[in-house]
Amino acid sequence: MSKIILGIDPGIADTGFGVIKVERGKITCLTYGSIKTPKKTELSDRLETLYQDLDSLLKRYHPDLASVEQLFFNTNVTTALTVGQARGVALLALKQNKVPIVNFTPSQVKSSVCSYGKAPKLQVQKMVKSILKLEKLPQPDDAADALALAICASGARLEGC
Amino acid sequence: MSKIILGIDPGIADTGFGVIKVERGKITCLTYGSIKTPKKTELSDRLETLYQDLDSLLKRYHPDLASVEQLFFNTNVTTALTVGQARGVALLALKQNKVPIVNFTPSQVKSSVCSYGKAPKLQVQKMVKSILKLEKLPQPDDAADALALAICASGARLEGC
Repeated sequence: MSKIILGIDPGIADTGFGVIKVERGKITCLTYGSIKTPKKTELSDRLETLYQDLDSLLKRYHPDLASVEQLFFNTNVTTALTVGQARGVALLALKQNKVPIVNFTPSQVKSSVCSYGKAPKLQVQKMVKSILKLEKLPQPDDAADALALAICASGARLEGC
Repeated sequence: MSKIILGIDPGIADTGFGVIKVERGKITCLTYGSIKTPKKTELSDRLETLYQDLDSLLKRYHPDLASVEQLFFNTNVTTALTVGQARGVALLALKQNKVPIVNFTPSQVKSSVCSYGKAPKLQVQKMVKSILKLEKLPQPDDAADALALAICASGARLEGC
């Protein structure tokens, strides 16, 4: 039985997403990218764009599970407020599309993908590229993070880690 | 010409709301209260409840303007993250219902309602009661704050302030 997992790294300017398919222990990448919202538009417009684009993605791939980055508590208050608003909208879109949600911290994701919770960004990207047999390093950074979140949620035992 | 203004004080556990009508300089209260979400349910369920209840309120009162509390920057990170998620969902509901949004800080609201930016909570509630000719002090606190936000957005010149 196959399972489709969506990873989401929420943000107001960029929300990374990555969709993987897990079938008999084999993981493949279906798509990845970043939902971008223009800086000069109002916050509510940006949140609506994020919601609509995420909703379209959910209706296209029908994931069985969503893996969302847990907000980290060592950020500053302004970042927390901003990311929080994007994260709230992302969770609402998932809930309305009846997609179960799991949360992982960046450290849990790095441990899962690289066996080291403080692995540098490039190492995570290289592992994601290797695991998903991508031709190049996944970009932008938040899309790579989203793919790593999806891989982490797959619970697959990763060779070479 | 009359104008209906909705004030919103967002939060995960309680989102205060207050609806006022401004007509020829006269302000009346149409309704106020608090959208509550149960603590033991998942965050995405709570956000969906908030969205649905707010959407119902918007479809019932068709406000011409919404006045939303600006998140304050002297809170702690955990609060900022939590309130941010509720605020994002509230802004989305307003945007989807095509309601223009203005933002005010607690200090701006207090200055507008009590002519003093550091007015204590009880003083704000007494002024809200007086301005709207309510029979009792508006409760809970976040509903009173929401009414004050709506009054602040009305730009009305308040007698006795």
